[in-house]
Amino acid sequence: MLSPIRWEDGALALLDQRRLPAEEAWLRCEKPEQVAEAISGMAVRGAPAIGIAAAYGVALAVRDTADPAAARRRFEEAFDLLAATRPTAANLGWALERASLALERALDRAEPAAEALLTLAHDLEESQLAADRRLARLGAELLSEGDRVLTHCNTGALATGGYGTAGGVIQAAFEFGRLRSVWVNETRPLLQGSRLTAWELQRAGIPFRVVTEASLGALMGRGLVDRVLVGADRIAANGDVANKIGTYPIAVLAERHGVPFYVAAPRSTIDPGAASGEAIPIEERDPREVTSVLDRAVAPPGTVAVNWAFDVTPHALVKAIVTEVGVLEPPYGESIASALAT
Amino acid sequence: MLSPIRWEDGALALLDQRRLPAEEAWLRCEKPEQVAEAISGMAVRGAPAIGIAAAYGVALAVRDTADPAAARRRFEEAFDLLAATRPTAANLGWALERASLALERALDRAEPAAEALLTLAHDLEESQLAADRRLARLGAELLSEGDRVLTHCNTGALATGGYGTAGGVIQAAFEFGRLRSVWVNETRPLLQGSRLTAWELQRAGIPFRVVTEASLGALMGRGLVDRVLVGADRIAANGDVANKIGTYPIAVLAERHGVPFYVAAPRSTIDPGAASGEAIPIEERDPREVTSVLDRAVAPPGTVAVNWAFDVTPHALVKAIVTEVGVLEPPYGESIASALAT
Repeated sequence: MLSPIRWEDGALALLDQRRLPAEEAWLRCEKPEQVAEAISGMAVRGAPAIGIAAAYGVALAVRDTADPAAARRRFEEAFDLLAATRPTAANLGWALERASLALERALDRAEPAAEALLTLAHDLEESQLAADRRLARLGAELLSEGDRVLTHCNTGALATGGYGTAGGVIQAAFEFGRLRSVWVNETRPLLQGSRLTAWELQRAGIPFRVVTEASLGALMGRGLVDRVLVGADRIAANGDVANKIGTYPIAVLAERHGVPFYVAAPRSTIDPGAASGEAIPIEERDPREVTSVLDRAVAPPGTVAVNWAFDVTPHALVKAIVTEVGVLEPPYGESIASALAT
Repeated sequence: MLSPIRWEDGALALLDQRRLPAEEAWLRCEKPEQVAEAISGMAVRGAPAIGIAAAYGVALAVRDTADPAAARRRFEEAFDLLAATRPTAANLGWALERASLALERALDRAEPAAEALLTLAHDLEESQLAADRRLARLGAELLSEGDRVLTHCNTGALATGGYGTAGGVIQAAFEFGRLRSVWVNETRPLLQGSRLTAWELQRAGIPFRVVTEASLGALMGRGLVDRVLVGADRIAANGDVANKIGTYPIAVLAERHGVPFYVAAPRSTIDPGAASGEAIPIEERDPREVTSVLDRAVAPPGTVAVNWAFDVTPHALVKAIVTEVGVLEPPYGESIASALAT
């Protein structure tokens, strides 16, 4: 399995996912500013992977200083910079808060800040992999032999730095003989489905076909989808799910056609501070992501586009949320509260 | 207003819509084979425009022969070739049947076949423009001042060779002060929304913004769409509507969000031989239209894609069908039958 995040020779190496599948190029980040740029530019993407990259980013910020006050100042600058890159991803703020606690503990104990933060980043990466594997096993049990699963965007190892969320469930289900094939939604505007998920599934030897989002109604209408499995960028306390734009229309179609709709995400994606989806900030990205494809214009000069990166799927459309601490079912207010208390 | 179809110096000139908006290039067709290639390759597209181009195509087939038997043979070859290019477009078969009647009448009267077929093609073009204008006026009356209309694919002059169907309604409504702005759905895979509709609206000075199909749930969820207006490629006798892939998901979202969903199409789009949407043949196109954009790959080599060109929207989701002979409302079995009897 390929991890898109590596700590190498005292720097953070990130697989530049913008250039996949054409080439496997790595970015070397030695400063938090470079990590922030890689996150906001989507060289690294997927809420859990963003969280891990940000943890390495704050570790880079403090590594050249022994002075506690300077370390705290540099940490805070890097924290603010990184936290602002992708406002919707819950795991980003979660990972940075963990780093903040680790820094304070190290400073309290007069231990080296850089070492403490680097250890934390490594720990987050390892625990992400462990959580993903548990989540994948639990999710795979929901599937049945012969299932044709529709997925959205990319939720494999590329998206988490571990084993994947919905992508991990797909991988595990395929290994357990509980999955026949995958429908990959191309996922405009940045085509993470056709560029990244197709690339991962091809490497894993899992049968798949790509479709446009426009095709999803026909696909479900023809009875070709048995289940939908998607990831999440932030889950509210009531079970509303913010995920890559296009998720909500899939959930609406799935409901109409009686196709169960599942969300797979680590517990760190749940934001208990958001009472419902309305409280989740939705990132709006550069309209040129819509008016051009692979840097070539597909609309006349001067065309204005709107480019929300996420939408919110109301909890009533979600059959279950698969986490590493269990499969959460409605009523989500209760199941989420008890998952967070675990 | 620009017509994408011109008869010039004894040949058919077609604006190559594949190359818009980057350049305005014209194809010159002197043989029916060239017209067939332009239709199947989507240099000319939109069900009404395809019908007109095909009528010119059969006129080209017979123009060098004075012998009635040879004319009939060449006509039939061209008819079969052209009829097979885009199986879903009702107007294609309709226009070719009209040409067939015109040929037989000319041969019966010992009149020149080529002249008769050319006259028919010109007539179809003129009556399309007249029908489009009537339809546009009727449709515009359904809109209200301040409306923000969502449209799909391209349904303007480029799509009909006249004034446009849904695009004509938009144009007329804007002129009558009954439309504030247009949401243009980019319409994967061939991006007729961002490439063609944006180009037409920009030339017409109508305010618009482009969005991906993935954004449509968020767009309606935020209350930013007042009406949906789309065209049609074939309408069944019960009111089921085959239109560009992605139309059905829009209709489902529109129903959920209480947004009226209108179809605008000339009467020639209605196929009384199709009892319901299930009887409408759905064209499946080259998967490379999905796995590449502007001829550049967006998926790994070897990726399989499914590329249905159309989907079917059940009549229950359609608030009204705007034609040149009136606004048809449910129950469609009755309103369509009486429109056809007009």
